[in-house]
Amino acid sequence: MGEFELIRHYFAAASCAQAGEGVALGIGDDCALLDLPAGEQLAVSTDTLVEAVHFPASADPFLLAQRALGVSLSDLAAMGATPIGFTLALTLPRAEPDWLQAFAHGLDRMAQQCGARLIGGDTTRGPLSLTVTVFGRVPAGQALTRRGAQAGDLLCVGGCLGDGAGALSLVLGQRQAPAQVAEALLARYWSPQPQLALGQALRGKATAALDISDGLLADCGHIAAASGVALLVEQARLPLSQALLALLGEEGARQCALSGGDDYVLAFTLPPAQLHGLQAAGWPLQVIGRVEAGEGVQLLDEQGGRITPSAQGYQHFGGNGV
Amino acid sequence: MGEFELIRHYFAAASCAQAGEGVALGIGDDCALLDLPAGEQLAVSTDTLVEAVHFPASADPFLLAQRALGVSLSDLAAMGATPIGFTLALTLPRAEPDWLQAFAHGLDRMAQQCGARLIGGDTTRGPLSLTVTVFGRVPAGQALTRRGAQAGDLLCVGGCLGDGAGALSLVLGQRQAPAQVAEALLARYWSPQPQLALGQALRGKATAALDISDGLLADCGHIAAASGVALLVEQARLPLSQALLALLGEEGARQCALSGGDDYVLAFTLPPAQLHGLQAAGWPLQVIGRVEAGEGVQLLDEQGGRITPSAQGYQHFGGNGV
Repeated sequence: MGEFELIRHYFAAASCAQAGEGVALGIGDDCALLDLPAGEQLAVSTDTLVEAVHFPASADPFLLAQRALGVSLSDLAAMGATPIGFTLALTLPRAEPDWLQAFAHGLDRMAQQCGARLIGGDTTRGPLSLTVTVFGRVPAGQALTRRGAQAGDLLCVGGCLGDGAGALSLVLGQRQAPAQVAEALLARYWSPQPQLALGQALRGKATAALDISDGLLADCGHIAAASGVALLVEQARLPLSQALLALLGEEGARQCALSGGDDYVLAFTLPPAQLHGLQAAGWPLQVIGRVEAGEGVQLLDEQGGRITPSAQGYQHFGGNGV
Repeated sequence: MGEFELIRHYFAAASCAQAGEGVALGIGDDCALLDLPAGEQLAVSTDTLVEAVHFPASADPFLLAQRALGVSLSDLAAMGATPIGFTLALTLPRAEPDWLQAFAHGLDRMAQQCGARLIGGDTTRGPLSLTVTVFGRVPAGQALTRRGAQAGDLLCVGGCLGDGAGALSLVLGQRQAPAQVAEALLARYWSPQPQLALGQALRGKATAALDISDGLLADCGHIAAASGVALLVEQARLPLSQALLALLGEEGARQCALSGGDDYVLAFTLPPAQLHGLQAAGWPLQVIGRVEAGEGVQLLDEQGGRITPSAQGYQHFGGNGV
């Protein structure tokens, strides 16, 4: 089966999702064409997942597709953008109908859930890897970037931290867990839920934002560097899930929350005056620290003393980003 | 060196090219942001090149980068779009400074030449492959697609055919050629020149267009299918370069022109009334056939008789697209 037939056949659902707004021409020509409403900007992000580097060799194709698209859409959430569509560059050692069908099904499910449409791509033969490029729209000048954090802002996150990293030890078979615990954590790993609505709600309110992919401390470091400020993280305020605490205990869970990656939860800085309105509207935000003049990221103990973190980064899956 | 530093260090030139028009935010945040002038649409295309499938294992990184970007930008040319920028997802077995420097240099050269800017990307560890996603702008409703060819139109191409396929035998070491011949053909293979200006000039004139990547007959088949017409190709009118004729003789050159891929020359259909104006303006177009009612692609001999082509497609480099 040729490249075109293959894409058309298996990915028809994701390319025809109802969320067609903004897509003037989809799959099947040299380019896709997107319309952008007046006064909006296009947000674009590209992510690659490589077998045995970012996911295990035997990964379930349904879950893999969900994860690949969810992770990419999380970058749109971090900018406060609304998804339009995505392209998929899929490199496969061979074309296996069962694998493709399950993969396309997972892709379609995440696409429908997030209102994104498959608008084009390329299918090639080679070692398994996926590159997803996502497109979203955001009112001009209102995108959330990493560079606006101000001394006096609160540091917040959009949900529990560390579950992705906790789940990784299950994915790798390094740990075992009771079914209920495993299920909760694996869902966070394989089906990350991009916080698109929260990102959009933060436009005009948050001063800086990103999604946590490299680990809380490393990602806070990105905001600190881009904004030219210091970020203080209060260790006692880190939101930890019951499942993660059950798997790793408090100390292990905290390490995952600080230095684990793959959470795909938003981290953002907020002027204190904005907090009450967002909380009253029911947004799931947790204050975990604050912004000060200075540089870098500091971890604070319960008495406000400064702790030297034992690990600052996170290396994905089995390998490293280079 | 981390992902961010690596991208920033080596790709700084391509990301800062003067052609920054339309790029509101480049590399370094969760997403890039693009501005689109009112009344324009965004054209998007994604292409992947995999080592040992689309290029040889020892490929020169400077040439590889030029080729990867040139091939992708050719899809914008085929739609009549003006480049804005591109993302690069680069998967590498290891980070070698010399390789990266040469690659970045080749990327920068093609980017500058075509007015495209590197706006983002992802760098991961794994078997060598590249996915380039290009972005361009085109006045709304004026993009050239594959679906407007009409009976009575002329079938035209933008330059010599078959050089890419002819060069492939040199790239693979299957043939040898005098220096002058080899140089001319290898330049066509490694530095394909996207026909961006021609594509833009064809807006509002050509009824259908694409760039020849799979081979003339296969690509004409795409226009025929999308437009619901038959395309007739006159074998005697195929433009063949002196270098290709010197390498393969007339029969071999013709086979490359018909069934070889990798030409990245535009093929398009044109109402006869448009021909004179475009020729007078000096555009390098060659009439090679015509459009009739019907379906499929027919090859005609010098007497107008119908020839059954011996090969209809083209399989890239050493492997196949799947």
